[in-house]
Amino acid sequence: MSRPRAIDVCRVSDGSEFHLADHPADWSGSDLLPSGLELRTKKQAVAELEVNRARLVAAQEKLWANDTYGMLVVFQAMDAAGKDGTIKHVLSGMNPQGVVVSSFKVPSVEELDHNYLWRYARRLPERGQVGIFNRSYYEEVLVARVHPEVIANQRLPARARGPHLWQHRYEDMVAFERHLVRNGIVVVKFFLHLSREEQRLRFLDRIDTPEKNWKFSAGDVRERAYWDDYQVAFEEAIRATATEDAPWYVIPADRKWRMRTLVSDVLVDVIDSLPISTPTISDEQRAALAVERERLVAEGG
Amino acid sequence: MSRPRAIDVCRVSDGSEFHLADHPADWSGSDLLPSGLELRTKKQAVAELEVNRARLVAAQEKLWANDTYGMLVVFQAMDAAGKDGTIKHVLSGMNPQGVVVSSFKVPSVEELDHNYLWRYARRLPERGQVGIFNRSYYEEVLVARVHPEVIANQRLPARARGPHLWQHRYEDMVAFERHLVRNGIVVVKFFLHLSREEQRLRFLDRIDTPEKNWKFSAGDVRERAYWDDYQVAFEEAIRATATEDAPWYVIPADRKWRMRTLVSDVLVDVIDSLPISTPTISDEQRAALAVERERLVAEGG
Repeated sequence: MSRPRAIDVCRVSDGSEFHLADHPADWSGSDLLPSGLELRTKKQAVAELEVNRARLVAAQEKLWANDTYGMLVVFQAMDAAGKDGTIKHVLSGMNPQGVVVSSFKVPSVEELDHNYLWRYARRLPERGQVGIFNRSYYEEVLVARVHPEVIANQRLPARARGPHLWQHRYEDMVAFERHLVRNGIVVVKFFLHLSREEQRLRFLDRIDTPEKNWKFSAGDVRERAYWDDYQVAFEEAIRATATEDAPWYVIPADRKWRMRTLVSDVLVDVIDSLPISTPTISDEQRAALAVERERLVAEGG
Repeated sequence: MSRPRAIDVCRVSDGSEFHLADHPADWSGSDLLPSGLELRTKKQAVAELEVNRARLVAAQEKLWANDTYGMLVVFQAMDAAGKDGTIKHVLSGMNPQGVVVSSFKVPSVEELDHNYLWRYARRLPERGQVGIFNRSYYEEVLVARVHPEVIANQRLPARARGPHLWQHRYEDMVAFERHLVRNGIVVVKFFLHLSREEQRLRFLDRIDTPEKNWKFSAGDVRERAYWDDYQVAFEEAIRATATEDAPWYVIPADRKWRMRTLVSDVLVDVIDSLPISTPTISDEQRAALAVERERLVAEGG
């Protein structure tokens, strides 16, 4: 038996048995982890992140040159879990032409007037690109579920509302992702899993540290009051939408260094498993290049 | 037993038993129609179209004011079946703010770099609008099936290609339409069903009538050589994607006057069956209006 890999512990590719309680927000000292899993020290994790960043830059060039696969990376989390920081630390260094980050805030009137997947579908990455969704269509079963007024604003027909609404949305999202994967857009979904206590400490830190004050808004604390509702919404969403084609990765978020390295581990693993290589050329094409070369040399006199 | 309605003869809401051969391209004198179906004369049809056009203009205003439902109307057909003329004759008169026609031609490089539904999803109608797709995502299982080079241009991953490709596309389209219908976008799909002989006559007419020459291109005749392949592709597409939520209407296209009136019959029937009415206001809102009225009257001195 080989040792369990950390990313396999995070991966949920069949949600039917998923329970958030099985996934610790802090791996250090947790007794929920499989035996044999080796935990990195902070120093190891930081060094590993550097290695992974370099591998991601190279992998992205391959993706771009190959122009067959694109990649959609979804980040979902409670406030202060570290989405923005993770995107910055893991993905900086990539060619911006090949990475597009889309952050989804409150929808516009035009967006509300469309089917809810519309605004997300418009921002999908192209082949060769990595598209990052900083929040995503999953908000449509998270914040929309915790705050009924979100649904009220969507002007849905009466028969669309009711208890089947969430099941229908999960089903539509699974079908949406299946379509993407079938057409070369690899889908990777991260839930950065923060504990309630760690969120409290981070909010306090944002209040107590003047240069972090801008990160804090009173709304964050109001939203925190819905903690349990959000946890239920996350658990049910992951349960219904974790598939072999579009797995969720539940990343322990209480220690940022571990979270960032794990996210980079997953991305490297996913890209490396794609059947792509730097494009090669045929003998015929090579001969054509030689002809062009002669021409350019001759032009020099 | 009530008499069969013409639009029910056209409607295919369960494709499993669908055979194109059961649907005559010309209803006049056909023995394939259910007994008891009363055929309109040309004069009756033309008069009825006028009535329907007026009803559509009123129905559209209701749709716009209600702002809950949108409508996606798909037109697919062989060349010269009369898509453009039908759109013009049936839908002229509607408020252009509420009607958006999207014609899909050869995809751009940017479009080819995305999942194939991307370019269609971007053009979906808003609530309150009628979106007309003059050709649609169904081309992805029609022209794409008849001409393998279309698929080659899409740079799909190797495992996406193969005989399951069409089945996957049908499945994705059914899921796409189900999502739309669940979110208030009514889906109506027309196949304007032309006979091979009538197409020949119309092409000849385009060549022989100088003012119609612009409508004809040699490519049309080349495409005609694939007639049987297209018929198979249409039949299988309708079989796989006709659902209760998003039915196909197979409209006999050999007589334009009959086709246009039938299309207008369907649209009127679909809009009329929506549970919408002109928005009414509450007593409270009426009282508020009275206050504003007083203010405006007083302002006049």
